[in-house]
Amino acid sequence: MSSFLTDHGVLVALACAACALVYGAVTARSLLALSPGNERMRAISAAVQEGARAYLNRQYSTIAAVGILLFVALIFIQDIWVAIGFAIGGLSSAAAGYIGMNVSVRANARVAEAAREGVPKALSVAFRGGAITGMLVVGLALVGVAAYYGILTSWVDQRPKEAIDALIGLGFGGSLISVFARLGGGIFTKGADVGADLVGKIEAGIPEDDPRNPAVIADNVGDNVGDCAGMAADLFETYAVTAVAVMLLGVLTFQESSAVAIYPLVLGGVSIIASIIGTFFVRSASGNVENALYKGLIASAVIAAIAFFPVTHWMMDGVTTRVVGGSGDAPSVGDFYICSLIGLAITGLLFVITDYYTSTRFAPVRSTARASETGHATNIIQGLAQGFQSTAAPAIVLALGILWANDLAGIYGIGVSVMAMLSLTGLIVALDAFGPITDNAGGIAEMAELPEEVRNVTDPLDAVGNTTKAVTKGFAIGSAVLAALVLFRAFEFELNEELIAGGGDPVTFLISDPAVLIGLLIGGMMVYLFAALSMEAVGRAGGAVVEEVRRQFRERPGIMDGTQEPEYGTCVDIVTRSAQREMIIPSLIPIVVTLVVGLLSVEALGGLLIGVIVVGLFMAVSMTSGGGAWDNAKKLIEDGAFGGKGSEAHAAAVTGDTVGDPYKDTAGPAINPMIKVANIVAILIIPLIV
Amino acid sequence: MSSFLTDHGVLVALACAACALVYGAVTARSLLALSPGNERMRAISAAVQEGARAYLNRQYSTIAAVGILLFVALIFIQDIWVAIGFAIGGLSSAAAGYIGMNVSVRANARVAEAAREGVPKALSVAFRGGAITGMLVVGLALVGVAAYYGILTSWVDQRPKEAIDALIGLGFGGSLISVFARLGGGIFTKGADVGADLVGKIEAGIPEDDPRNPAVIADNVGDNVGDCAGMAADLFETYAVTAVAVMLLGVLTFQESSAVAIYPLVLGGVSIIASIIGTFFVRSASGNVENALYKGLIASAVIAAIAFFPVTHWMMDGVTTRVVGGSGDAPSVGDFYICSLIGLAITGLLFVITDYYTSTRFAPVRSTARASETGHATNIIQGLAQGFQSTAAPAIVLALGILWANDLAGIYGIGVSVMAMLSLTGLIVALDAFGPITDNAGGIAEMAELPEEVRNVTDPLDAVGNTTKAVTKGFAIGSAVLAALVLFRAFEFELNEELIAGGGDPVTFLISDPAVLIGLLIGGMMVYLFAALSMEAVGRAGGAVVEEVRRQFRERPGIMDGTQEPEYGTCVDIVTRSAQREMIIPSLIPIVVTLVVGLLSVEALGGLLIGVIVVGLFMAVSMTSGGGAWDNAKKLIEDGAFGGKGSEAHAAAVTGDTVGDPYKDTAGPAINPMIKVANIVAILIIPLIV
Repeated sequence: MSSFLTDHGVLVALACAACALVYGAVTARSLLALSPGNERMRAISAAVQEGARAYLNRQYSTIAAVGILLFVALIFIQDIWVAIGFAIGGLSSAAAGYIGMNVSVRANARVAEAAREGVPKALSVAFRGGAITGMLVVGLALVGVAAYYGILTSWVDQRPKEAIDALIGLGFGGSLISVFARLGGGIFTKGADVGADLVGKIEAGIPEDDPRNPAVIADNVGDNVGDCAGMAADLFETYAVTAVAVMLLGVLTFQESSAVAIYPLVLGGVSIIASIIGTFFVRSASGNVENALYKGLIASAVIAAIAFFPVTHWMMDGVTTRVVGGSGDAPSVGDFYICSLIGLAITGLLFVITDYYTSTRFAPVRSTARASETGHATNIIQGLAQGFQSTAAPAIVLALGILWANDLAGIYGIGVSVMAMLSLTGLIVALDAFGPITDNAGGIAEMAELPEEVRNVTDPLDAVGNTTKAVTKGFAIGSAVLAALVLFRAFEFELNEELIAGGGDPVTFLISDPAVLIGLLIGGMMVYLFAALSMEAVGRAGGAVVEEVRRQFRERPGIMDGTQEPEYGTCVDIVTRSAQREMIIPSLIPIVVTLVVGLLSVEALGGLLIGVIVVGLFMAVSMTSGGGAWDNAKKLIEDGAFGGKGSEAHAAAVTGDTVGDPYKDTAGPAINPMIKVANIVAILIIPLIV
Repeated sequence: MSSFLTDHGVLVALACAACALVYGAVTARSLLALSPGNERMRAISAAVQEGARAYLNRQYSTIAAVGILLFVALIFIQDIWVAIGFAIGGLSSAAAGYIGMNVSVRANARVAEAAREGVPKALSVAFRGGAITGMLVVGLALVGVAAYYGILTSWVDQRPKEAIDALIGLGFGGSLISVFARLGGGIFTKGADVGADLVGKIEAGIPEDDPRNPAVIADNVGDNVGDCAGMAADLFETYAVTAVAVMLLGVLTFQESSAVAIYPLVLGGVSIIASIIGTFFVRSASGNVENALYKGLIASAVIAAIAFFPVTHWMMDGVTTRVVGGSGDAPSVGDFYICSLIGLAITGLLFVITDYYTSTRFAPVRSTARASETGHATNIIQGLAQGFQSTAAPAIVLALGILWANDLAGIYGIGVSVMAMLSLTGLIVALDAFGPITDNAGGIAEMAELPEEVRNVTDPLDAVGNTTKAVTKGFAIGSAVLAALVLFRAFEFELNEELIAGGGDPVTFLISDPAVLIGLLIGGMMVYLFAALSMEAVGRAGGAVVEEVRRQFRERPGIMDGTQEPEYGTCVDIVTRSAQREMIIPSLIPIVVTLVVGLLSVEALGGLLIGVIVVGLFMAVSMTSGGGAWDNAKKLIEDGAFGGKGSEAHAAAVTGDTVGDPYKDTAGPAINPMIKVANIVAILIIPLIV
């Protein structure tokens, strides 16, 4: 029991997290030293940077207003330490998103410039751009959690349990940023995308990324604020929240509170080292980009799997006094280690499954492309059916993972699995952020009229980015569901502890209890309402863009023949305002509905939390996989299948792709943080409801 | 306690049910006495009749094969009485569908002929055609349940509890027919519809219902086998299953087993009388068809609400010895009566909500129509968003209903509410079956080249039929969810009774139990898989029709100029075979998955049942309302809004309507019986799992 790791685990975690931050800083420095290309390229990149900064500033101001209210509320409902944790979580998540995005919008022109020298060079720049965000996310999350825990236990002299309660606030801070960033960014990116496409491609007949389209800069800004900043905030939150929830469950269910509290942090720490090593495996000598990226991921998974063994052995040997939960004997070191391997296996399986449903190589995308031959409607029907079907395998994988990990080490075992899943977060964010950087690079190449060869390098990179984006979404929702389950159990334990401390009886959540059932219905309703509102928001934002572009074409007839400049800023401004306005109400759903139901009935609150998780899983997976299938069905046709570009089938596939946009980039991924916000709010309002 | 009703309740129910059958027979006789029109009309009607008969014969043969296997299995798992009940349920449901559909396919030509004399006459014929099916459904269901109960308790000398166990078999018989009929009929009708539209309207450029389209008869057959026979089987099942489940819960939770067992039957009986009286209120002097239909519904609801009071007073006065369940004091007569009124109120609210989301008068349909102006994709996005949003209000209504009824009289109170909801079934089936009859009548008028005025009468009737169809689906899913909850509780009580009898501990379904959670995930997965498979089935059936029609146009070039006759029979045959093949696997999902999970873990089985109910509710409502919104958005544009027929917006709206077809007529409504089959299978396999 008494090893260096157990005694100094917090310091080890902090040291590892510092490595991530150093990696980020060094890589950013070397990246920014590269040439950002000619004057035209720099100008376009600057316009994207300005738009992205303007958007994020406005978004963070809006969130800050809500955040200050919640900060004050937390002081009264909980205590000052929880409120301070909330501020730390919010600020670090915002910092990760802000810095990461600022790097991304600078990397875009540098990737376009590097693409003049071929695929390996462009891949290296784009991937490093994404890796900076990835390492910042995990580094800041781990620093925040470990440092605040260390400060509270050492200097403020709190017991582990008290310190972790304050950390729940930190998780909530991250969650708040996350739901706003996912939703606001999602509405921005898809509003701009749909609007630019509708008026540019369809009405004016100009190609994508054409500089005459006044919405083109907004579209490029959107790629960054949605896929880069949004995803970063989402995974920051999942990472921080999961770590906190697992720590909490550890101290609630085991007696060895120090070891079980620090174990998740050390797992996260060694994974950072594994991820940094993994980044050096991303090299494409052969030109196969997908293989190069996955090689990095597999390398860091293998290193992590090996490293977990001694860590588990040193820390968890002797942790046997289980307080509650689980079945059979108390878990052994081997049991904990297997739980961590289960997490890595779940990640692998979710990757393979999402790849099957969204890659052009397999039946789902091919059948969706084939269905486009008989028209728009059959394309949509097939895409919806594929989306529905794609939920089955992930549901079974998660179910088996839950079953096995629980059997080995109870709910804490499930928590260890999720921590192991999330150990790959740094690289996964890198894979995701890689997408918008190359997408932007292609846009810059198009607008700056770079030679054809440059697009021939960026286009295949962009296609790979589409697949990695889809695949990382499968990972994000899978980990979100498991993390939410861990949070739910933490809620249940905390609640019953408070109830018993107050002299009352513990509450049980029976599915046959009408109140629990009603909660399940309300939870499901929250997911559907959230999805409905965010889909409609994209429609409205897109409509506003269409009107603005029409106005510019009308008032400046010279735009089309190049004699007048379009005004890019107004489009950015319109989508920004639209996204800010539209994100508020859906974002408040998981906070307000959870609070109101909790005040009315504790049993209904329990049902609500599980209803959100179960219904949310199916909704999110069907949306992200269905959207990915539509996207790549269009790509398959554009590559020449089923009539190719310009055919009737292509027109139908474009419809599917446009429907898929808000599905896979707005509503679907925003469900992840929404699930967790509901569960974390429940924990925080316990003092109000007992 | 000892009133005539309590002593002779079964006879009262049987007498009322007999009235329904007599009403059906007399009305059928008077309807068939009407003129079926000229020779051409009779020929078309005969072709539809032949196709419908051929389809139903094949469908029932397929079901019979599965049914015989299950019959034998039930003898071994349960006993001979359950198996006989199963046969009775299956045969009466089949009889209701068979006779009803045979009347409908004869009523079509008669409505077309009556339409020559104006709206009131046509409405009267079409409504009476639907009312025959409606009264047969409730009459046969009530006769089956009441007579078998009477026989078992009087002649076979079983105790109420034993007799009701055998009735579960009867419910299962109805369920089996229902899931096959909904799915097979849904695949048939939409396969034919989508296929006929794709090749006729889009490729050959001929209007809907054009006799040159070889798939036109199959399309008309589909309206009958899907909306008429399918809906009849669905509501037969809901009615019978609910009655049985409420009876079962009554004897399980109260000591006065005779009164609580017979009360639901008497409620059903007096409702039949109320419904028969209600049919006489359906008259349109003013020509407002919708008002006329709703007047009938409101009249019978009011009469039922009044009649429930004395019935409840006479039967339930003195029922106070609650065994288990509910909160607070034992329920009074007033409590039971309020429960019945809650059921009627739920029906009314679900009607208003579905009407709001699917009628051309309100924002959801108007916004979907407006979104069509910017293309196919925005129409689809808006329709999907409206479908999602439309789940919120029904979920809240059902939640409040559950809460209130449970508070008054426990789970039996919820059962009484569902029985009261279902008391309007006879009229609701009539409203639904009214749709395909007028739709067919319009088709016959078109094909037989009747004067323009005839279509001017049938078209508005058809439009009303679309709304009533959508609205009755909202009712069907709402009642299915509540009925399934009652079944779930019955399952839980039975299971625990068996467990305790075997010397074991009762099982509890805690949502925090990993096994229950896994069950919830598997239940949700069943719904998504079921929906995915049935949507794809429609796509495949439609594709087969397209190929056959193309073949006929190629081999008989004279079809288009009228010198050669198309071969209608082969199209009917192809969709028939396709529907038979495609319905098997999805139909087996709720039987096989439930059985396998039940054998593995009782806790997971409980989770599965609730997972199917909760996820199924949202999926079914969003599909049926979304589909209805798309359908009527197209109608709104065809009536001249947003550019009218032939505009770009119209083309986009046609896409939405085609996507909505399998949504609202195949997958969505088939989820209702699927939910109940899973729950009833769970009850029947209890002997295998304890």
